[in-house]
Amino acid sequence: MAKASAPSRDRIVAGAADLISRRGLNAASIRNLAKHAGAPLGSTYHYFPEGKQQLATEAVRYAGGAVTRILRKELRAGPVAGLRAFLALWRGIVVDSDFRAGCPVLAVSVEEPPADEIPPALIAAAEAYEDWEGLLAEALRDQGADPEQARGLAALVVASVEGAIAMCRAKRTMRPLDQVARQLEALIDGALDRPA
Amino acid sequence: MAKASAPSRDRIVAGAADLISRRGLNAASIRNLAKHAGAPLGSTYHYFPEGKQQLATEAVRYAGGAVTRILRKELRAGPVAGLRAFLALWRGIVVDSDFRAGCPVLAVSVEEPPADEIPPALIAAAEAYEDWEGLLAEALRDQGADPEQARGLAALVVASVEGAIAMCRAKRTMRPLDQVARQLEALIDGALDRPA
Repeated sequence: MAKASAPSRDRIVAGAADLISRRGLNAASIRNLAKHAGAPLGSTYHYFPEGKQQLATEAVRYAGGAVTRILRKELRAGPVAGLRAFLALWRGIVVDSDFRAGCPVLAVSVEEPPADEIPPALIAAAEAYEDWEGLLAEALRDQGADPEQARGLAALVVASVEGAIAMCRAKRTMRPLDQVARQLEALIDGALDRPA
Repeated sequence: MAKASAPSRDRIVAGAADLISRRGLNAASIRNLAKHAGAPLGSTYHYFPEGKQQLATEAVRYAGGAVTRILRKELRAGPVAGLRAFLALWRGIVVDSDFRAGCPVLAVSVEEPPADEIPPALIAAAEAYEDWEGLLAEALRDQGADPEQARGLAALVVASVEGAIAMCRAKRTMRPLDQVARQLEALIDGALDRPA
């Protein structure tokens, strides 16, 4: 074990992203989020004076940004390589957690916002989807896919992988993600075969 | 307004399914579920003596079964008709709730179970996905799709529609479901064109 030290701001954000992906946002208090990150509540409020919504928003941005960076890097080798990296990332999270963790971006997406405001964490979730879809669509277009088809296929990739992660957690098997992976790979191959 | 009367067991179950789809299960107490259904807590415990997990399990089965019945009926007119009914059902829920409600089956799928048990509501969610996928795959096979491709495409339909519902809620637009709908319809047409 490393010696006890003050947890960094980043470690609190990463811990919050993990807990939100397991439990959802509504059911996680700032106390739960701090504890899960191994951080005293005082340090957590020091870094996030606005409380839970501020921490949750940064957690969604952190998770969304981590996926965006991997996608951007791996898509340089083409859309199928990017898809495989996207799938491998989620597979690792679901398998390593024994089907207990998933996607924090989806977790905040499926929780009703207050009646009178759109919480910043929900806006951050929408932005994460946009970023992932934008990168996938760009990579498809760069390889000759029709622009409208590239956007539609990118949306299908993100939606089906997000849905498959949830199905894997309920079924306690990776089969849904495996099935979706095969379908998506064939679709991308097909989209690139078409004349631009 | 109808006169106040004792809420039926079915109304409590339907109300619980709606609240779970909005808020998730972890964040909804049995008191919240009863209140949302307009039922006294006493009646709720009368019908569901085992409490929240029993009510949640029935709510997931109720929602899963309602979708299964619609799919079974509409798939008689073919896989595309079934897909359109599946999409229309979810579109109605998301639009009518102003992006606040979604799928209760997905909601329970993305919440970490207790360390030592698989809750019956999670098992009910897995069964709902299996039922929907099974019906879609059967309809695809009946129309000449290759059996393995039928199973894969059915998984893709369920996963991508579930994911798209979450994306619609975050983005507050039905565009993700529209995009996925177009992709899936083209895919089903393609699968049926292939020699069996």
